[in-house]
Amino acid sequence: MTENNKLLMKAYADKVDEQLLKFTENKPELQGVVLEAMEYSLTAGGKRLRPMLMLEFYRMCGGEDLDKMLKLACSVELIHTYSLIHDDLPCMDDDDYRRGKPSCHKAFPENIALLAGDALNTLAFEVISECAMEGTISADKAVMLISVLSKAIGTDGMIGGQVIDLQTENEEISIETLNTLQSCKTGALIEAACVMGVIAAGRLDLIPAAADYAQAMGRAFQIVDDILDVTGTFEELGKPIGSDSEQHKNTYVSLLGLERSKQVASQLTVQALAHIKKFDNSEFMYELTQELLDRRS
Amino acid sequence: MTENNKLLMKAYADKVDEQLLKFTENKPELQGVVLEAMEYSLTAGGKRLRPMLMLEFYRMCGGEDLDKMLKLACSVELIHTYSLIHDDLPCMDDDDYRRGKPSCHKAFPENIALLAGDALNTLAFEVISECAMEGTISADKAVMLISVLSKAIGTDGMIGGQVIDLQTENEEISIETLNTLQSCKTGALIEAACVMGVIAAGRLDLIPAAADYAQAMGRAFQIVDDILDVTGTFEELGKPIGSDSEQHKNTYVSLLGLERSKQVASQLTVQALAHIKKFDNSEFMYELTQELLDRRS
Repeated sequence: MTENNKLLMKAYADKVDEQLLKFTENKPELQGVVLEAMEYSLTAGGKRLRPMLMLEFYRMCGGEDLDKMLKLACSVELIHTYSLIHDDLPCMDDDDYRRGKPSCHKAFPENIALLAGDALNTLAFEVISECAMEGTISADKAVMLISVLSKAIGTDGMIGGQVIDLQTENEEISIETLNTLQSCKTGALIEAACVMGVIAAGRLDLIPAAADYAQAMGRAFQIVDDILDVTGTFEELGKPIGSDSEQHKNTYVSLLGLERSKQVASQLTVQALAHIKKFDNSEFMYELTQELLDRRS
Repeated sequence: MTENNKLLMKAYADKVDEQLLKFTENKPELQGVVLEAMEYSLTAGGKRLRPMLMLEFYRMCGGEDLDKMLKLACSVELIHTYSLIHDDLPCMDDDDYRRGKPSCHKAFPENIALLAGDALNTLAFEVISECAMEGTISADKAVMLISVLSKAIGTDGMIGGQVIDLQTENEEISIETLNTLQSCKTGALIEAACVMGVIAAGRLDLIPAAADYAQAMGRAFQIVDDILDVTGTFEELGKPIGSDSEQHKNTYVSLLGLERSKQVASQLTVQALAHIKKFDNSEFMYELTQELLDRRS
């Protein structure tokens, strides 16, 4: 990645971080702790990939008002953060660490973590409706955005993927089932982020291209995650190595082996890169995609 | 309540029940269990008060298409059901029963119950966006509805109330704090239901009257709940008597005593009835309000 693009990536993440802080700025005395828990998880770091995808697709579709779209783009990160908090809960993956820090229910009481996740889920939709009421986007676009986002994280999307994951925990599944699982669990929200950028820019004709890109990139991203889980180090990943596989999770590496997983990730990367070229001004997204799928952590 | 109005109440509840079943009709093989859990809790009974409020306020504001608004009205019941599922979880109130049936996490694994609640939260917003995309309501109205609903159940509303409840569990609080707690925890969603009916009918001028009614009725409803919790029987309530107070919860009865609680409930009932008279065709709502605040279970 060029130095310029590295700076651009950093600038995106910084702006997203800044905007995220605003959502929990006001902490009422009696219930402030839940806003602290939300803020704790929102500021726990991360690449801010999803808002960045939304903003870049908006820009590649001719959108010119990136700063105004920042709040809207953060709705996807609110959802992502809610899903991480609930995923880490004792009754789910029971993970004590997230990005090298104690997970939300370790830093706060478990019930506060549960409610912080719930509040972030709802807040995403509040934020989109606010963007329409403030005039940042039209009501028609807001309705489409809410439709896309809610479907992506419902029982046919993210929640569905989490359920499939739980239901197949102790059995070896087929690669087709793993594809369905991952396409729901992580792919759907990544696709929503890309498609939402396209909708915000009003280029509905480009929704299929964005969806195709997202599906290829999302799957490659997950395979790379699985590969890193067996090859990475604690420092790089922020969680114990192999923590997923110890819980008998089905991963691309456990089903396909390490070498084949790397091959499939490469093929999907080539596909994703081909899809991104359908967009104008796609140089940054091209490099970002290469960077994401060649990452070490 | 007149026999006619009793039939009308039953007809509302039946229509709501029928519509609710449609949301979980399609159960994909791999993740069907989460839809079963959602359906289990959605069909666990209840008065369907919130959708009924929304539909009646819509009607009292001149709305003429009640059947078309049914799906929209159910969005509030989806939220109510999500809140009950999460409220009952072990890390929250740890309630094994709900309306005389095992609670969701007793009938299903705890993680499935958690995800069923999450999915119902999101589904409410999907349903409202769908109503706009199908043309039942305008996009402008959908955005307002989503704004009202999301605020009502966020950290300044329902979630905020739950947090205050948890934070003050083992200390005696002031009546002002209990009022804030209840106005957030249960009042906000009841208010949202009433206001959403007004918005759907396009009578924005009547929002304050609907909100005033809801605040008085919601608080009276909660006081009656607290009274019934110490005077009711297991058969009538569907949960062990005194189950709330045993957990050192602050209730109107524990702070004000039984007699004073009954007086305050009566005063609030008078206020609620006065507010409802500001609406046309309010006979049913008048009787419903009397019925609700004079109930035995």
